[in-house]
Amino acid sequence: MRIVIALGGNALLKKGGKGTAAEQLNAAKSAISSLEPILRGNQVVLTHGNGPQVGNLLIQQQATEEVAPMPLDVLDAMTQGQIGYFLSSAVSMTGLHSATLITRVVVDPEDQAFKNPSKPIGPFYGTPPKTQNAQPGTRYSMDAGRGYRLFVASPEPLKIREHDAISALLEKGFVVIAVGGGGIPIKKSGEGLEAVIDKDSATSLLASHIQADLLIFVTSIDAAYLDFGKKAERALGQTPAQDARKHLVQNHFAEGSMKPKVEAALRFLEKGGRKAIICSISDIRDALEGKKGTIFVP
Amino acid sequence: MRIVIALGGNALLKKGGKGTAAEQLNAAKSAISSLEPILRGNQVVLTHGNGPQVGNLLIQQQATEEVAPMPLDVLDAMTQGQIGYFLSSAVSMTGLHSATLITRVVVDPEDQAFKNPSKPIGPFYGTPPKTQNAQPGTRYSMDAGRGYRLFVASPEPLKIREHDAISALLEKGFVVIAVGGGGIPIKKSGEGLEAVIDKDSATSLLASHIQADLLIFVTSIDAAYLDFGKKAERALGQTPAQDARKHLVQNHFAEGSMKPKVEAALRFLEKGGRKAIICSISDIRDALEGKKGTIFVP
Repeated sequence: MRIVIALGGNALLKKGGKGTAAEQLNAAKSAISSLEPILRGNQVVLTHGNGPQVGNLLIQQQATEEVAPMPLDVLDAMTQGQIGYFLSSAVSMTGLHSATLITRVVVDPEDQAFKNPSKPIGPFYGTPPKTQNAQPGTRYSMDAGRGYRLFVASPEPLKIREHDAISALLEKGFVVIAVGGGGIPIKKSGEGLEAVIDKDSATSLLASHIQADLLIFVTSIDAAYLDFGKKAERALGQTPAQDARKHLVQNHFAEGSMKPKVEAALRFLEKGGRKAIICSISDIRDALEGKKGTIFVP
Repeated sequence: MRIVIALGGNALLKKGGKGTAAEQLNAAKSAISSLEPILRGNQVVLTHGNGPQVGNLLIQQQATEEVAPMPLDVLDAMTQGQIGYFLSSAVSMTGLHSATLITRVVVDPEDQAFKNPSKPIGPFYGTPPKTQNAQPGTRYSMDAGRGYRLFVASPEPLKIREHDAISALLEKGFVVIAVGGGGIPIKKSGEGLEAVIDKDSATSLLASHIQADLLIFVTSIDAAYLDFGKKAERALGQTPAQDARKHLVQNHFAEGSMKPKVEAALRFLEKGGRKAIICSISDIRDALEGKKGTIFVP
């Protein structure tokens, strides 16, 4: 089977940790250890978030004027190198062959998202930092009353530029690490853009491009829930797309958390995908057998 | 033809520049524009240095204690992402397909180089910085009387871990960007090491692994010279390996500059390579026709 698995950024940099290289490598080893049975005997692409890592890079960009700060597209490329290396190392240590591809994703520079930068990234500030001006299409705004944060556009991904390279490596037996942080946003012409692409959305698009049999979103909770956090909360098991769409309309899934995953799962099915799963990393084998997690079907 | 081309780090970040993203992208576009006739119709891997970029990252690691500093292997992975993205962008803008692979290189942790860290990297300091202790196998030492610098080991590359992935992508028609900064030094078991691998040496090893027809070192001067800088200086044209070996013994080539390139060229020929060229980027087409540059043959 050809499987695309999206790992959350927090699967690789634990909250409360310092984010040292040793911590990140250990987190990667732990994740890969859970995935190993699936990596063996299947064609697998791993995608991953980069929120905490790009936040750290943003702090470093502003910490000294001695070095020219890099824009967001370049920082994303750097976190792809960083996190891809940790994941590649962890995969190699199991004896499997891995390859990390720097991945660019085409977006429309006229996407409405650029008119309303809505995705907060990086650290909180008492006042907007002066060492680095917000780039065109980004702004510093108050975030949830906790301080100023950089808000950037989150445009819709249109094409994974490296999808052919990813397929070529899968066919040769490599575990491929790609689309890190949702991919580097570029125009069709190739120029980078100051934006952040939703990782789940980009992962779904990749799964469609490469005609994956299965798309899996690994989360910190064990399934998508209805009435999550309420007394009546209940986990969704196998769920037809039609039902999931109703649950979406009824606002059962949290913005910026479960909702984008459910939407990305449904988009994969709409484009011909046959199965999409949301589950915790420890449940992944049971989820493949239909025993755990939320399993969306057409 | 299958061709491996090594670009100097300074080809991508000019001395005297600030090293902004725009400057680096423009330098990459300029380099790719010179190479485009060769990229078309051949299987080409581009490797590159990362000296100025990793120096900048080292400064940023020490500029704030808010973020855990990353060790050298991780910084190398990050510069591979950064520079690979610039080069990939430049290649894509010509209409060719490119792919950037994060590349690890196996070295022996018992390599004598770890006993005598000899390669200075990053900025000069009045006193050794305290925010980041030198890791085992590295040390801060006075460099040429100009200040303290981090000295790291430069072990011999034994195996390019990703060479199969590189071949797979070449066969599918991608211009492959790989082995950035000489590659990320790892043990055979996969763990990273605090070291820097000579880019020319790692590039030569890759060319042997993938049975390249031709290895090209792009330099800021137009050829390897005998008696360089002296009144009797003369450029080497076509040169049999046997003669080059004599010139090496007679110390015609500068340490850390032309010497590692000549040695790397000869190593490629010893392992079955048929031709290795040292030339400037503007002379590259003429060099392919035997009219310019230094051309080493068995």
